[in-house]
Parts: sequence; structure tokens; C-alpha cells
Amino acid sequence: MEAHDRESQEPPQVLLLKPPPDFKLFGEEAFPSEKVQFLKAWKSTLPLDEFLKTHAQSVEAILSSGGAPVTAEILRLMPAVRLVMTTSAGLNHIDIAECRRRGISIANAGTVFSEDVADLAVGLLIDVLRNVSAADRYVRQGLWTTKGDYPLGSKLGGKQVGIVGLGSIGLLVAERLVAFGCHISYNSRSQKPSVPYPFYSNVRELAANSDVLIICCGLTEETHHMINKDVLSALGKEGVIVNIGRGPIIDEQELVQCLVQGEIKGAGLDVFENEPDVPKELFAMNNVVLSPHSAVFTWETFKDRQKLVVANLEAFFSNKPLLTPVVDE
Amino acid sequence: MEAHDRESQEPPQVLLLKPPPDFKLFGEEAFPSEKVQFLKAWKSTLPLDEFLKTHAQSVEAILSSGGAPVTAEILRLMPAVRLVMTTSAGLNHIDIAECRRRGISIANAGTVFSEDVADLAVGLLIDVLRNVSAADRYVRQGLWTTKGDYPLGSKLGGKQVGIVGLGSIGLLVAERLVAFGCHISYNSRSQKPSVPYPFYSNVRELAANSDVLIICCGLTEETHHMINKDVLSALGKEGVIVNIGRGPIIDEQELVQCLVQGEIKGAGLDVFENEPDVPKELFAMNNVVLSPHSAVFTWETFKDRQKLVVANLEAFFSNKPLLTPVVDE
Repeated sequence: MEAHDRESQEPPQVLLLKPPPDFKLFGEEAFPSEKVQFLKAWKSTLPLDEFLKTHAQSVEAILSSGGAPVTAEILRLMPAVRLVMTTSAGLNHIDIAECRRRGISIANAGTVFSEDVADLAVGLLIDVLRNVSAADRYVRQGLWTTKGDYPLGSKLGGKQVGIVGLGSIGLLVAERLVAFGCHISYNSRSQKPSVPYPFYSNVRELAANSDVLIICCGLTEETHHMINKDVLSALGKEGVIVNIGRGPIIDEQELVQCLVQGEIKGAGLDVFENEPDVPKELFAMNNVVLSPHSAVFTWETFKDRQKLVVANLEAFFSNKPLLTPVVDE
Repeated sequence: MEAHDRESQEPPQVLLLKPPPDFKLFGEEAFPSEKVQFLKAWKSTLPLDEFLKTHAQSVEAILSSGGAPVTAEILRLMPAVRLVMTTSAGLNHIDIAECRRRGISIANAGTVFSEDVADLAVGLLIDVLRNVSAADRYVRQGLWTTKGDYPLGSKLGGKQVGIVGLGSIGLLVAERLVAFGCHISYNSRSQKPSVPYPFYSNVRELAANSDVLIICCGLTEETHHMINKDVLSALGKEGVIVNIGRGPIIDEQELVQCLVQGEIKGAGLDVFENEPDVPKELFAMNNVVLSPHSAVFTWETFKDRQKLVVANLEAFFSNKPLLTPVVDE
């Protein structure tokens, strides 16, 4: 359909299955556009499947966020959908293969989050090595006065940092840690030709040569439980792991066991296997920092992301290229 | 006294008034040297002044740490002292004027701590802006499950960061924050010719033009309470302050009031006016991070510092130049 055909018509319909976090934080006008019409499934009194059937021929795009999966079933019910736009960078809640089969375009938040995520990765690493959160608890409990100095931490400079997944986030983490005097190496699906850091084709080997492992990759079938007991053992008793990717990339039960038994030194975790559930064993540990999947949670970036979502939707329905399309690799 | 005179003699005596933190952490052989003899005042059954009188003619150096001030009175009692070596970078526990008057050399830890301190400054800033410690408490209290997402934080990139005191620590803080996309400006006694960042001769003006103020200067008569109500008001309601210098550089009562009344947004504090006492009002605040003066507390740096102390003492008593002398500016 050409852009000029739309002039006399209603704006194209964009389906939202659940309210994205932006609505709670910024109100329901978080994605302001006069060129699309948002259809909010949760506002209807109809059961979801009836609601979807009612709009099956008119909904041309789905705006999804992490909490609202776009399954093959939903795509089957909505045959007019030509775009799935997700407010996230990750795609693990979208049936990508089914989208491809149906010729549905996908757009995500691109790299709009990358700086925030990289910042938190560095923040979690400093926190674990330098005991920031643990020492803050110590002070708040009045223990500095009664028990004296907090135990020594460990220096960032000189650390061998292995980055798992050198995409936009991994590269920004590397850039930041170079400024702290860390030595970077990385593992990814393939070696990046333009990157100065040593490449390990095997994540276990990377772990064995690292003081710190930072998980920056996406969650796929290949990366699910990629960080297993074997990799954690290779990282070793003095090793620290930071995860700002997705929880299931690490075998969480094994991670907890390694922490309980002192087989690794510490962990900074923004993501978990069964969010918002966090393994209770971690709550009493001073060598872990627990973050509630908030790596992208800044006002500035939410605002930038909202503009990007609107710009993608408007571009798509004006037959212009998507700003942040997801393309097969 | 020439170095070769010493060959047939006892090694020169170095007085310690109190055990330095290194002794507690690494044992009393933390500063191993066969070329000097450590005299530990706290080991004697004599009252301190009698102990000092007994050794008045033989003690040629004092090895001091922050908790053991070197006063004019002590220097008067020890007329043979030619060197005051402190394990700290800061000098506020040493009567520098009296040392100068008596021709006593001073050496400190030089820049051995600077990287650790800069690292913690950045860690505290990320923590305050991104709610790391506060969100960690939230997760540990089980609130992620019951109350949902933690509130949004604020992005590092694009922030105007004002650095107060652009010495070795301030420069390293600047280098690190540039990698996060922050914009640096600074205030110091005088403009540094080789530095690319904008200079403000007035700290209030720097605060008025900054989102974040990081205190990196030393404590002197001039910097005592330099960060007063006026400067904090200029920093403003969205402003964040980080102090890794010394507590009394900030008027702590005014800081607490500003935080209580929301006149600034948050604070990351490694130092306080009356350590280890921390104002109780801060304990319940989620927008502050409290660190127990641990900016230099890493194993790696303690080890490096111990080597540096020994190297300074041995150089001095071999009539070689001090490695990290304190020279008048």
C-alpha cells in the first residue's frame, strides 16, 4: 500500500498486547504519533482471542515489549501484520522464524540502550571488585563504627576481562574498561576483523584466560546455558562474572553452587533465569550484586527509545526504510 | 651522615607511633627491609612521651599513617628526625610547616593510590545515577517480586561533570568518564596549561554549570568547607555530588540538609567529617551511597604501596633521592 493511499483513511492499526513499561512510567501517550493508531488489547472487555479475531484484518503491526511474547499462534491469528516492532534490544520473546516465514519485518530498539547497558556492566564490575554495595550495607548497619575498616577489595587496573559477545554493548564495555587499565579479550560467533582485542573461539578458553567474564551476548538456542559449570570452573576461584545479557545464558543453579562453594569469587547480575525470582541463596552473599534487570532503566534512554519506536512505525507506514531493522546475520 | 658510615652500625631507626592498617591486614612484616629498623611505640610499656625521650637521639624517620598524626610536639621531641614518610597520599595529619621549619623531608604514597580512588569515584557515580546499591537492597528484600520494577535512573552519557581538584586522581577520573560520554570541566588552584577541559576559577560557578560535582582535591585550610550551602544550591535539584577527597571539604551538615530537603539529587560519599561516624539521616536514603573511606582499599595497591614505602626509606638512608617526595607547590 502506498503512503498516499492512506490520506483519506484511518491511520494503520498497531496492536499492543500488554502495556509496555513506558505506559506505567510516562502515561499512555508515551509513543505519540498521529500517523498510527494503537489498539490496546487489555482495554477490551472481549477475551483476547475474540479481540484479535475482531481486528485480524486491520492490524498491520504489533508493538511488543519483553513481557508480551509474539508467538506463532498470535501471528497466525493476525494475517495482516507486516511489522513486529519491539521496544527491547533482545528478541527472545519473538518467534523470529515465524516472522521470516510470513515475510513480516522486525524492528527493535537497535543500539539505543547500548550505552546504558555498558555503563551498568562497568558499574556492577566496580561494585563487585570494590565491594561498593556490600560496604554501603556495612555503613548503614553501623558496623564501620563498631567493627572498623571494611575488608580490602580488588583493583580494576590490570585485570584480564573476557567479553562474551562483542556486539554494540560488548564494544562499549570494552572501550570503558580500557580507560580503567583492563586488558580485553573476547568470544563471539566469529572473529571481528576491525577489533584490536584478542579473540577466543571457545568460551571456556576465554574464561580460563580471564579474571572477569562479562556476558554481553543475546539469548539464543546456542547461548542458552552456554556459561555452564565447566566455563565457571575455568574462570576459577579468583574469577568474577557479570551478566547484563539474559539470565538463561548462565546455568543459574551451577552459578549459585559455584558461589556457595567459593569456586568463583563473585558475580554482578542484572538478569536471572526466572525473573523476578532471584535464587534466595544469593541474598546473604556480600560478593554478589543483584540488579533487577534495570540495565536500560534511565529516563534519558526511555525517552530516546520512545522517539525511536515512533520513528520506526512512521517510517514503515510511509514506505521508508526502518531505522533499526532486525536483519538476519 | 654518609651511606658508607652505616656499614658497621645498626640500621637507622624508623618510628611508628601506631600500627598502620597494613600490619592488621598483612602482619608486622608488611614493610620488609633489612636496611631500617622499625621502632613500634605501642609495643613499649613506657608512656609515649618517655618512650619518645628514650629514643629522641636515634630516631631518624617517622613512618606515619592517617590515624597517627605527626604534630609539632612530636617533632620537637624527636630532634634527630630527618624524614616523615606517610603511607597515605593525603598530608592533613602532618604538620607540614613544622617539618619545613626543621628541614625535615616528607614523602607520601605519591600516586600509587590514584587509580583505585578514581575507580571508586566512577563506581560511586554510576551507583548513584543508576541506583545500583539501592536496587540491590530492593532485590534482597524481595521487593522486585512484590512491587515490580525499580524506578528509572539517570544516564551517564552527556552529563556535565565538574571535577574539583585536577591532580593525578582528578585527571584519572576525567579520563574514565570521557569513555562514558561525559563532558568534563574543572576547578583547581590554577588552570592547567596542558589540559583540554574547560577551567572554572570559581567552584560555585563550576557547580552551577555541572550535573555532577566530584571532589578530588586535598584537605587544606583553603578547601575546608569549600563545598558549602551556596555551592550545593548552585549544583541544584538535579545535581549529584561525589566525594573521594576528604570529608571536611564539604560542610556535611549543609549537605545532609540539602539531601533531606531535595535541594540536590544524590551523593556518593567515601569520606565524612567525623569518620567513622556517618550522619544517621543518610542511612535511610536511597539516593546516597555510603562508602567507609575505602577508596584505596585493594590488595594490589596495598602491596604496591608497601613496596613504595620501603623503597623511599631505603633510598633516603642511602642518600638517594626519595621516590615520592612531597615538594612545596
